[in-house]
Amino acid sequence: MAYTPGVVIVGAGFGGLQCAKKLAGEDCQVTVLDQHNYHLFTPLLYQVASSLLNPSDIAAPTRTILHGRGNVRFRLAKVIGVDFERREVQTEEAGRVPYDYLVIAAGSTTNYFGSPSIEAHANGLKDLSEALALRNHILRCLETAARLNPVESAPWLTFVVAGGGPTGVEYAGALSELTGQVLPREYPELMDRQPRIVLIEGSENLLPPFAPDLQRSARLELEQKGVQVRLGVLVKGYDGDSVQLANGEELPAKTLVWAAGVKPNSLAAAVAAPRSARGRIEVDGGLRIRGRTREFAIGDIAGFEQDGRDVPMLSAPAMQQGRLAAANILASISGKRLRRFHYRDKGTMATVGKGAAVAQVGKLHLTGFAGWLAWLAIHLYYIIGFRNRLLVLAGWAWNYFRSDRPVRIITRAGPDG
Amino acid sequence: MAYTPGVVIVGAGFGGLQCAKKLAGEDCQVTVLDQHNYHLFTPLLYQVASSLLNPSDIAAPTRTILHGRGNVRFRLAKVIGVDFERREVQTEEAGRVPYDYLVIAAGSTTNYFGSPSIEAHANGLKDLSEALALRNHILRCLETAARLNPVESAPWLTFVVAGGGPTGVEYAGALSELTGQVLPREYPELMDRQPRIVLIEGSENLLPPFAPDLQRSARLELEQKGVQVRLGVLVKGYDGDSVQLANGEELPAKTLVWAAGVKPNSLAAAVAAPRSARGRIEVDGGLRIRGRTREFAIGDIAGFEQDGRDVPMLSAPAMQQGRLAAANILASISGKRLRRFHYRDKGTMATVGKGAAVAQVGKLHLTGFAGWLAWLAIHLYYIIGFRNRLLVLAGWAWNYFRSDRPVRIITRAGPDG
Repeated sequence: MAYTPGVVIVGAGFGGLQCAKKLAGEDCQVTVLDQHNYHLFTPLLYQVASSLLNPSDIAAPTRTILHGRGNVRFRLAKVIGVDFERREVQTEEAGRVPYDYLVIAAGSTTNYFGSPSIEAHANGLKDLSEALALRNHILRCLETAARLNPVESAPWLTFVVAGGGPTGVEYAGALSELTGQVLPREYPELMDRQPRIVLIEGSENLLPPFAPDLQRSARLELEQKGVQVRLGVLVKGYDGDSVQLANGEELPAKTLVWAAGVKPNSLAAAVAAPRSARGRIEVDGGLRIRGRTREFAIGDIAGFEQDGRDVPMLSAPAMQQGRLAAANILASISGKRLRRFHYRDKGTMATVGKGAAVAQVGKLHLTGFAGWLAWLAIHLYYIIGFRNRLLVLAGWAWNYFRSDRPVRIITRAGPDG
Repeated sequence: MAYTPGVVIVGAGFGGLQCAKKLAGEDCQVTVLDQHNYHLFTPLLYQVASSLLNPSDIAAPTRTILHGRGNVRFRLAKVIGVDFERREVQTEEAGRVPYDYLVIAAGSTTNYFGSPSIEAHANGLKDLSEALALRNHILRCLETAARLNPVESAPWLTFVVAGGGPTGVEYAGALSELTGQVLPREYPELMDRQPRIVLIEGSENLLPPFAPDLQRSARLELEQKGVQVRLGVLVKGYDGDSVQLANGEELPAKTLVWAAGVKPNSLAAAVAAPRSARGRIEVDGGLRIRGRTREFAIGDIAGFEQDGRDVPMLSAPAMQQGRLAAANILASISGKRLRRFHYRDKGTMATVGKGAAVAQVGKLHLTGFAGWLAWLAIHLYYIIGFRNRLLVLAGWAWNYFRSDRPVRIITRAGPDG
């Protein structure tokens, strides 16, 4: 009986899962390692943080996604290093895991750009626990404001969002819907007060990768929702009470949502591999870690240049790379030539709120309701799991018809949870 | 303009909410205080802890429930004491809140019967954070077992439930469904292993308040599901690795679910009022705290004897008391006679799993599928909020047809959440 090579995939995100699915049924034994037991549909995290969706609407157990694929196994483990020479992955709780081929798909985390004050006091929006913590925080701010006088309550009703990319734009829009829908109805104490949502972007435009007409449309939609958009302004620090801007200005606010950037997972720095300027693991044309033959890196953690530019940290390139890495591993096993990765940009979209989004697919630019329908269709199509699709749809339909944000409960697991 | 008396209700559980609703529209100003911003449908907590339901399926924001009632307000605050002389409630975060009439409806918490080892290592099942922590713990146990050999994994696959009341019976049944449905399908590593669920009850019967035929039926149903039922056995201690029984026996298990009893909220001991043997605040026939005229206590925290027995700590008497306390406050305000409380027992039920429950309504005893249908109808009817009712029904239907427990994600809010 021939030896069956073992493939270890680090990370069950968009890239890692595509790679695992592509290797299913092939002549190899695949082990997917992740520190969480679920795959997270990150593009909808902001809807958890704004009380529209339940965590399980956007998170499916990785075992559920992978089950029925006999040669693919899952193991809950946080990977802290890789020993290239011994071909072993080092994990925090499950010891060492040997491999014949390795795919590092560990993704990215919030980038605080080296500001300890912001890291300590701002709320990130990159993983499920950050989204839940942010939801709890916002709801607590509303409750605190409800028992204070107008002057005292102002900083509790001021929500600053740093970062004008899709996450910041989408969260600012969702937050304005949350406060706009819920406050007048359920917070009679706050009837005379106006919550303030400020979206701050360091460059001169929202949604930098989009075309200028879509950038303008998004800004207009946000401003119609009451969001104050401030461009060309940088956030310098935050002490939990007041946001310090680079121009010397101070914004008293109990909330700073940090959506200003992401950086590669810390595993990138823990492996002995060359890294790009942005800290991503450099890979060759076939997605192998530069200088290695059996180790691949894909997605946000991998640095791949195309047309002189870094492939963006998005789900689409990660999924495309996951499929190619799988194909190249199979090619390696059978001694064939590896294929070169080429990113096909199929378009980008961002929603600004109920019934409004911007979408850019090649030369096609959609805004407003048309953009929103396109956004809805694509997100529902891609979200993992049939049940989730149905429940997410039901939740959205409910929100759409009732203008409600029903998941407004402040809760957390216990101290051991 | 006449003075409008202020009524403060401590606790937004079954009793407090009924009281608030009954006072809505009356000539008084009602303030509901609770340490959580949601009302919890506690009878279904075990379904959150066994991955069937989302937290928000059984928890609705208290403001949502109360909105539209102009004279009823909500305030998020943990009450830590009452100053009867100054007629003020002391809160942790919102200072002092004055009242003309007070209703203490602060409920109950898990009773560890003075065992620090059990309190430190067992998982309670009385509030939402305990349920989430328990769900996370069970799922981690399965993941840990999946990477160990059969001998090492045994304690990770042994789940001991202490307490043969409705909570213990329902959780043991739900846990056997979770492991029975999910393990064979998604944990190929555990194919050769059998999880062990042990339900331990100190008395000689499960479900002590039920009739003997229903007790036997519940036991039979549980045993058919593979649950080991041990009666007349007491749990003495637990160090996280091994459950110590009073007969000297040790059960190696990484999980002890403590459903063996509840005790009145610690507020009962913090107020200057006489308490019953079980630590509940003693009330007179009109539900006023003994010796007081403007302060009432209802629900689990209130000690009321009827026919020589304590009224049980259940939602039904709490709701009945909530309505009577409201009526008696209105009677006091208008100088009328107070009415005497009388508990009407409309029946009890407990589910043993999908398609099996026991119900006792007067002389009517239902078991099996008939009992389950009755249980389903009543729980869906009583669960708060139309959306929740629909989503809970959808979740159950899904579980019923697919034998799935979809909410199997290990997650928690961040450190500040």
